[in-house]
Amino acid sequence: MSATREFSRWMADIQQRTEHALGELLPPPIQEPRRLHEAMRYAALGGGKRVRPLLAHAAGHLAGADPARLDRVACAVELIHVYSLVHDDMPCMDDDVLRRGKPTVHVEYDEATALLVGDALQTLAFQVLADEPVATDAARQLSMLALLAGAAGSRGMAGGQAIDLAAVGRRLDRAELEFMHIHKTGALIRAAILLGAQAGDGLDSAAFERLDHFGKQVGLLFQVVDDILDAESDTATLGKTAGKDADHDKPTYVSLLGLEEARRYAEELLADARATLAPLGERAGLLLGLAEYITRRSF
Amino acid sequence: MSATREFSRWMADIQQRTEHALGELLPPPIQEPRRLHEAMRYAALGGGKRVRPLLAHAAGHLAGADPARLDRVACAVELIHVYSLVHDDMPCMDDDVLRRGKPTVHVEYDEATALLVGDALQTLAFQVLADEPVATDAARQLSMLALLAGAAGSRGMAGGQAIDLAAVGRRLDRAELEFMHIHKTGALIRAAILLGAQAGDGLDSAAFERLDHFGKQVGLLFQVVDDILDAESDTATLGKTAGKDADHDKPTYVSLLGLEEARRYAEELLADARATLAPLGERAGLLLGLAEYITRRSF
Repeated sequence: MSATREFSRWMADIQQRTEHALGELLPPPIQEPRRLHEAMRYAALGGGKRVRPLLAHAAGHLAGADPARLDRVACAVELIHVYSLVHDDMPCMDDDVLRRGKPTVHVEYDEATALLVGDALQTLAFQVLADEPVATDAARQLSMLALLAGAAGSRGMAGGQAIDLAAVGRRLDRAELEFMHIHKTGALIRAAILLGAQAGDGLDSAAFERLDHFGKQVGLLFQVVDDILDAESDTATLGKTAGKDADHDKPTYVSLLGLEEARRYAEELLADARATLAPLGERAGLLLGLAEYITRRSF
Repeated sequence: MSATREFSRWMADIQQRTEHALGELLPPPIQEPRRLHEAMRYAALGGGKRVRPLLAHAAGHLAGADPARLDRVACAVELIHVYSLVHDDMPCMDDDVLRRGKPTVHVEYDEATALLVGDALQTLAFQVLADEPVATDAARQLSMLALLAGAAGSRGMAGGQAIDLAAVGRRLDRAELEFMHIHKTGALIRAAILLGAQAGDGLDSAAFERLDHFGKQVGLLFQVVDDILDAESDTATLGKTAGKDADHDKPTYVSLLGLEEARRYAEELLADARATLAPLGERAGLLLGLAEYITRRSF
């Protein structure tokens, strides 16, 4: 079996086990309040590339972590991501009607339910990380919780959303755009990698520093590629409303750099990420494969 | 100094130190994103009776907990409470313009900011409970985090909100109303008490069971009194829009039982709560005082 084929199988396997683990961790739809639980499952299950769970598992593999523990870590991060999508799609934010090829939660249900779905998915993320052991000692697990909260909160992802809001209709320079994305997308991607690694015991502090750096590079790469996709795809391929950032007059890497330069920047980030991982040897192959996969999504 | 006066001083002291601790734990308003951080402080500071922090400190006193640790526990619970108020006030939920005598967050700022403020306050609650030691061992602290998440999530407070939404315009019977309030208000009040107690080491499992029971009684008592207040107060006294539940055709204890019977029920719950605490002796005096204070708010 070729390396590419093996990697694709690994990806499919992680995506499938993440779907299964989320299904087990989300409250059953027959439990009261049923409509809320049904809507939480609607939001979290049956879609998504599961980029953050893939990164968590790949980093965990590098650190020799137990896959069952990695499932919990991966789900915690993914639940934070999904909650942010549900809230971000609401009329007072991006007012989007399509997500992962399905009507958004506030369209399929209603706004109040979408608000509560996002709230409850966020809570569940922390519960999943606190409920059962995901690291060899409880003190490390506490620091993992603190790391996830830091990445999700006002100094991380939610802060990035706020910067994004403030930027609509304004021309950001490259430094400002980067600052926004480091928070909005980068913080949680970095957290997925670090949390996966912390679920194991196999890494020294030098390796952690490399992973931290790689996490930042991949976070940026992900956003640059996302902007490229948004600019060139149609709605059907993307599974969400295409061109919306340009429509909303939001700054993107494409609007700032142009399509060609944005593509060049993505290639540059990928090369840097490859260099960061090189000293970690073959076991970092899954992480590198993901960086390549993220880049390949667009060209 | 009389016991009542001493109790009032204790309350004022806890309210003040909670305000101070929240001010320290919330991101400074000069940190980016400024508008979000400013709005988070607007929502969380300078108001509120701090009932949950008072309960956490009172239970912690009973358990011999360190007051500095109790500050963190109290703030974590209060941040969950405040986040729920901010989201509950939004147009897609209760659409309220006044809270604690001030314009609600979405009125003072905007809807998108209110959404992010609630989101980020919830995240901060878990961060506060994970960041630094609040119990003698890390494993217990993890179980405290799980307890708070359970109380806040879809099987607790957020679930209660969903049940509340579904109940508008429908006549609930007493059992249904109680089920709703046990989730919507009761779960977090119970959590405040149990988390305060778990920050210390002084209680055996029998005492914990009593506190658990007391927590449920006080949660219900709080809601019954809240319904009475809502029915009989005017907006100025209440600091939030009065009579809104009746306006929205929401079921309340007053609409279900009538004012007199609701008052009688509150007195009965208080007597039961007193009986629950009796075997714990004098150190439970603060908790009992709070149950009495909660009842006295209305008559």
